Amino acid sequence: MKLDSLYSELTLKTNAKHVLLVLDGLGDIATREQSYLTPLEAANTPNLDALSKISAQGRMIPVAPGITPGSGPGHLGLFGYDPIEFQVGRGVIEALGLGLELKPGDVCARANFATLDSKGIVTDRRAGRIPTETCEKLCAMLAAKIKKLGDTQVIIKAGKEHRFVVVFRGKGLEGPLTDADPNREGYAIPTVKPRDPKSVKQKKMAKLITDFYKAALPILAKEKPANGFLMRGIAHQPEIPLFEDRYKMKAAALAVYPMYKGLSQLVGMKKIEGPQSIAEQFERYLTDHDKYDFFFIHYKYTDKAGEDGNFAAKKKAIEDLDAALPILLKKKPDVLAITGDHSTPCAAKGHSWHPQPVLLHSALSGSDKLDRFTETGANTGSLGIFEAKYLIRLMQANARAFDKFGA
Amino acid sequence: MKLDSLYSELTLKTNAKHVLLVLDGLGDIATREQSYLTPLEAANTPNLDALSKISAQGRMIPVAPGITPGSGPGHLGLFGYDPIEFQVGRGVIEALGLGLELKPGDVCARANFATLDSKGIVTDRRAGRIPTETCEKLCAMLAAKIKKLGDTQVIIKAGKEHRFVVVFRGKGLEGPLTDADPNREGYAIPTVKPRDPKSVKQKKMAKLITDFYKAALPILAKEKPANGFLMRGIAHQPEIPLFEDRYKMKAAALAVYPMYKGLSQLVGMKKIEGPQSIAEQFERYLTDHDKYDFFFIHYKYTDKAGEDGNFAAKKKAIEDLDAALPILLKKKPDVLAITGDHSTPCAAKGHSWHPQPVLLHSALSGSDKLDRFTETGANTGSLGIFEAKYLIRLMQANARAFDKFGA
Repeated sequence: MKLDSLYSELTLKTNAKHVLLVLDGLGDIATREQSYLTPLEAANTPNLDALSKISAQGRMIPVAPGITPGSGPGHLGLFGYDPIEFQVGRGVIEALGLGLELKPGDVCARANFATLDSKGIVTDRRAGRIPTETCEKLCAMLAAKIKKLGDTQVIIKAGKEHRFVVVFRGKGLEGPLTDADPNREGYAIPTVKPRDPKSVKQKKMAKLITDFYKAALPILAKEKPANGFLMRGIAHQPEIPLFEDRYKMKAAALAVYPMYKGLSQLVGMKKIEGPQSIAEQFERYLTDHDKYDFFFIHYKYTDKAGEDGNFAAKKKAIEDLDAALPILLKKKPDVLAITGDHSTPCAAKGHSWHPQPVLLHSALSGSDKLDRFTETGANTGSLGIFEAKYLIRLMQANARAFDKFGA
Repeated sequence: MKLDSLYSELTLKTNAKHVLLVLDGLGDIATREQSYLTPLEAANTPNLDALSKISAQGRMIPVAPGITPGSGPGHLGLFGYDPIEFQVGRGVIEALGLGLELKPGDVCARANFATLDSKGIVTDRRAGRIPTETCEKLCAMLAAKIKKLGDTQVIIKAGKEHRFVVVFRGKGLEGPLTDADPNREGYAIPTVKPRDPKSVKQKKMAKLITDFYKAALPILAKEKPANGFLMRGIAHQPEIPLFEDRYKMKAAALAVYPMYKGLSQLVGMKKIEGPQSIAEQFERYLTDHDKYDFFFIHYKYTDKAGEDGNFAAKKKAIEDLDAALPILLKKKPDVLAITGDHSTPCAAKGHSWHPQPVLLHSALSGSDKLDRFTETGANTGSLGIFEAKYLIRLMQANARAFDKFGA
């Protein structure tokens, strides 16, 4: 028997309110440059401190030991989906990140403009990193002329610099395909192929990509330096069991950035639009408190500061969130989890594999008697170090949403 | 290669004595009501304290994160059997709990007396919770008239209030079946069906249940309010590899309550009858020390107090056990593990998913330099937080019962 089936069998519907508060990239490491304090340790966090004294703590492995996740796997894990089992193609993630609303069956591709020589050999895989405005102009040109290929709708959306996304919406399409990208300069663009040679849908999709190149390359022929393009991560939106079916909870997402709105929609959460600051997000939680069972609240700025290697900014982002926390606690959820989707250590200037700290509070969380919420403290908490995909199961347990297993 | 096969391959026979001392429902949580102390933390335990200073500690997940086990899965895990792989039907657990001695192939069902209207509709699933004496009288009536169905022996045993158990002993029988219980009032009793429609044995068993109803309902027809009954958890005793074959250890169970005697017999432990108090159980261990390699000693009162939400009683149950501990230590086992089968927090008034603390002592356990045996201390122990099914493997390792793996 699969563990997920056991969880499903035992799941009860409750009236409990759950909040999953994600400080993106929260986890960090203690280094000499910062007197061996992490941003969480250095920050002034009176509200988190108070919560810590009455909560359980632990650390979470986002995917598997040593694996650094992107935002996709990071959040799928937090939502309780095994990020290795439920893989979302880069095209899909990129499309979500650009705010495109995807439909089941849509096939998405990440693309970049590139420079080709007269023989079609790739001479610059990023077309000299053309400015975003040029990219937008080129995408508009393509979109004006290529609206459909046969019965398939084509949606083209510009990203930053040389990057764009193409979505194919039609019947009987499926990924994944091999990349239309030699992955190095000096080679021609390879023809895409089905990853599964037996799949009729992948064959149809591969032909569509070829047709797209036939239609698009002549439009770009006279452009300099972006007279070509590469396509990667061509895949359809995977079938993911809906959050509500899986957990018997109606879920809403309070996120500001499109990528996180998109990821929450992938699992069927309701996207709440409007709030721009964490205080506004918390206020909206108060307003919508009775409408949902589960709130995913996403805060981006810890990750941004970590990516920039900006310790002071990460510390401040934590302090800003802490200052807003009393708004959320006006209607204290029955189960509250505060964590990150992964670590983004300032010293690494990027995502990392280090387990992120997690704080869990409910009437049954118990207290680990820790005075603060920090990485070092979390190491000694009663939750131990566990895979992030189990967090939501622990939240369910804390809401008494599981029947007893066996007599 | 399966991990269990690797363990088996490496297992050596040793002369070491092992004791697994289970304080049922030992684990607890720190709450404000009890000044953030757990019963283990609040209790006066000089003998456990002394042991703690020379032992390793950790915490164990009974089944999987967030899953609250019943006594069955809790103990199977402690005995080293994956409780999800080896599921024991509720009928079997109930029969064991009533002290019935089961044979391989027996199919057991939990039953309760119920009230039916003239059309056979269930109007009260518990027949007004009839007194235990009435239940015993009705069971005796049924047992007197239904001893066999075809070549199958039928054993009927009364439980508490409206509950009873029916065991079918014969050839070619198998569960699980669907329930003969509409699970709500206002509906007729459904006919049971094989869970696996291809199983000939389950088909035979389903017919036996139908025949049992045909024979039993007329006997009860004039009873009020118990003129009917429901049957659930109909399943056979699963095939479980014998403890002695699996671990190369002869095992004995020193348990007072029938359920735990039954669970230990399920895996082939020898049931030692007689002792009623923990001091008597320890004395008997001293007497029988040379006869077995492994002693499972079960202590119920921590769980009972937790179920009642009685903090003082749980604390006292721990202190009583601590006071008796020097008897056991007169012949200190080579490997001693002290733990629970799950947590039963006073605040939850029932079993829970919180990892239970475990203490492991042997010449090779090392010391975690912890002054006491508590949940909070165990969080930081060298055993970490691990699944309970591995405890017995750690005990074997501490007895040097595993050959080196690879050169």
